[in-house]
Amino acid sequence: MRKRVVGVMGGHEHHPETEELAAEVGRRIAKNGWVMLNGGRNEGVMAASARGCREAGGFSVGLHPGDRHNRDVAPDLDLVIFTDMGFARNSPNVQSSDVVIALRGGTGTLSEVAYARTYGIPVVLLGFDDKGWFGDTVRRAKDIDEAFSMVKAILGGS
Amino acid sequence: MRKRVVGVMGGHEHHPETEELAAEVGRRIAKNGWVMLNGGRNEGVMAASARGCREAGGFSVGLHPGDRHNRDVAPDLDLVIFTDMGFARNSPNVQSSDVVIALRGGTGTLSEVAYARTYGIPVVLLGFDDKGWFGDTVRRAKDIDEAFSMVKAILGGS
Amino acid sequence: MRKRVVGVMGGHEHHPETEELAAEVGRRIAKNGWVMLNGGRNEGVMAASARGCREAGGFSVGLHPGDRHNRDVAPDLDLVIFTDMGFARNSPNVQSSDVVIALRGGTGTLSEVAYARTYGIPVVLLGFDDKGWFGDTVRRAKDIDEAFSMVKAILGGS
Amino acid sequence: MRKRVVGVMGGHEHHPETEELAAEVGRRIAKNGWVMLNGGRNEGVMAASARGCREAGGFSVGLHPGDRHNRDVAPDLDLVIFTDMGFARNSPNVQSSDVVIALRGGTGTLSEVAYARTYGIPVVLLGFDDKGWFGDTVRRAKDIDEAFSMVKAILGGS
Repeated sequence: MRKRVVGVMGGHEHHPETEELAAEVGRRIAKNGWVMLNGGRNEGVMAASARGCREAGGFSVGLHPGDRHNRDVAPDLDLVIFTDMGFARNSPNVQSSDVVIALRGGTGTLSEVAYARTYGIPVVLLGFDDKGWFGDTVRRAKDIDEAFSMVKAILGGS
Repeated sequence: MRKRVVGVMGGHEHHPETEELAAEVGRRIAKNGWVMLNGGRNEGVMAASARGCREAGGFSVGLHPGDRHNRDVAPDLDLVIFTDMGFARNSPNVQSSDVVIALRGGTGTLSEVAYARTYGIPVVLLGFDDKGWFGDTVRRAKDIDEAFSMVKAILGGS
Repeated sequence: MRKRVVGVMGGHEHHPETEELAAEVGRRIAKNGWVMLNGGRNEGVMAASARGCREAGGFSVGLHPGDRHNRDVAPDLDLVIFTDMGFARNSPNVQSSDVVIALRGGTGTLSEVAYARTYGIPVVLLGFDDKGWFGDTVRRAKDIDEAFSMVKAILGGS
Repeated sequence: MRKRVVGVMGGHEHHPETEELAAEVGRRIAKNGWVMLNGGRNEGVMAASARGCREAGGFSVGLHPGDRHNRDVAPDLDLVIFTDMGFARNSPNVQSSDVVIALRGGTGTLSEVAYARTYGIPVVLLGFDDKGWFGDTVRRAKDIDEAFSMVKAILGGS
């Protein structure tokens, strides 16, 4: 019964173009019937991808860095796991995803791409600039269509 | 869009009577439209509650102690978070639940009840013997009907 | 070259008698040449045991629940590990100790005693009331002299 | 009483030249009276830096990814913290260091440099190739002498 899980990583900064892309990523994950996993906060890529996922009727889970009293939670998430691990939650975020889509982000997102490499989890870069760091489990997509072709190939279809 | 989350805690030991109770707890959580959260392993209360939840068409998530290569995963779960934290995951398990139902278990379950007390999260004991340790956020149910009456009162209806 | 590590667990509440006992525990750990490990905060048993350990020239390490910006740090500690795990750090605290001395505490301390039981790490209760929960790896000391006799027996002598 | 803590990061792979450099880094940290912190395993940079630190009479602590039953522990460490967090321990490793020296390593070390950037902790690269990723809290040393000049400047002398 395990659902396929697609992790969406990216920055907390406000960046309209990236957020629109993140929302569309969320919508497409929902339409494919996969669970969307992100970092849980009510900012940037996290908030936008959760919104997109909800709009398309999908199921989303956020692995939040804070504890249960934290109020910086994306309101469109279906399920929030309060890891209370700070940025260390970047490790379980990646480990719990079957494939990761990395959007524009900073050093937090970099640590997630590094973990994905360490764990051998496929990553599709969609706007995240890897500056040559990464090897053959990291693919670079030129647009969202190519990104989802890559994800489907990785997940084995549908 | 946040779903209500009911955590189910209890031992990994094989104990038929407790497992049947755990399966029924899973079924009732599903029928109420809540998400069921447990510890993710393919043993005891964890495996049985996931099975019950699936039988009744619910959605279940397991916060697993191991990493993504671990194979001791309850097959009926919809979503598995590989925390890779060992027993420290007992803390996010509890923090991510709106209410906890504690079945028969050992010192692992005790640590979860202790965390629930620390965080102020309501606990319903259903077969778990608290031996007088706990205060007024811990209620003792005499059977599963009373347990779910308590959970509904805590969650505020339906 | 591994030093022996004695964990000191107990509450953050202000309780003069317990704090004086914690300071004496810290002094005796130092005099025995063991490393003292505690929870790192500048309160209750944590602050007092670090002070005692420093007074007697020992080495102490605190596994702090917060991140590096946290200012609630016992000033007498030699080394602070910022786990940024919240109360989940109770698990590595216990796992990193060869033996645990549990003083007066609440549900946080209870979770540590539960973890010690789970991991099979010996615990000496010195003022912590176990209310009958625990089995044969938990010993109950009537005073600090008996507590240290027990610790020395566990560690295999001075 | 807090000691200054210098984190030493780098790969677990066997690489004789890097290991000799790591041992010398450990010796110099010891001679400066700082605590050395590393990742705790009995391999590569971790084992070698612990050995160097011991040879020069220093104090070293390893934040190990495994639990207390793990046997892959560098034997020269004075203190081992069993975080039981897997690679997520890269976050507390960095947060608990006043400055990080990054030697040759792979994606694990990259995640640590990324965390150091996120947390604003100074990093001295000594053989680790950042490939242009990092900004002004990351300094690049041409040899071990320059590396320690940088560390001393960061720690404020002696």
